[in-house]
Amino acid sequence: MSAEIEELLKRYQSYPNVVGTIILDPFAIPIKTTMDYTLTVHYAALVSTLTFKAAKMVSSLDSSNELLNLRLRTLNHEVIIVPSESYIIIVIQKPGT
Amino acid sequence: MSAEIEELLKRYQSYPNVVGTIILDPFAIPIKTTMDYTLTVHYAALVSTLTFKAAKMVSSLDSSNELLNLRLRTLNHEVIIVPSESYIIIVIQKPGT
Repeated sequence: MSAEIEELLKRYQSYPNVVGTIILDPFAIPIKTTMDYTLTVHYAALVSTLTFKAAKMVSSLDSSNELLNLRLRTLNHEVIIVPSESYIIIVIQKPGT
Repeated sequence: MSAEIEELLKRYQSYPNVVGTIILDPFAIPIKTTMDYTLTVHYAALVSTLTFKAAKMVSSLDSSNELLNLRLRTLNHEVIIVPSESYIIIVIQKPGT
């Protein structure tokens, strides 16, 4: 894994209330995670499908537009998903800040 | 449409940089919109599918959890989606604030 991803991961982990970070490759394979294996695989499958759908929705509404990130606020967490060409970053935060 | 929704719509429209708001009923039928018909119908179809998928993802990861809202940051806009039992609110903002 590149130094760039290590750097990104470090940055996201320094955010307040971050409980986990996962990095997926473009095929939705986890290449780095701070969460347990089962949860990582579960997140990987669900997030990649959702992100693909969201990106498709954005370009379908306006072909010159592009999805930069996706945030899911839930009762227990905030999930931030940052897709890029070479990976998808998932950051799970406890709400509160 | 209830006074409650009118109130919500007014509140969201007072947000800075809001370019449009759409309210859908639980069957994804637009019941109020400030955008043109074609775009409203397009948003309605795409957002309802995405929201349903996101809500399913959240409860599938943890059945005690629940989706409160969904934000899509794109090159041109930020789309905020607030689902509830009786309607889905869609707010489209120009980024910048």
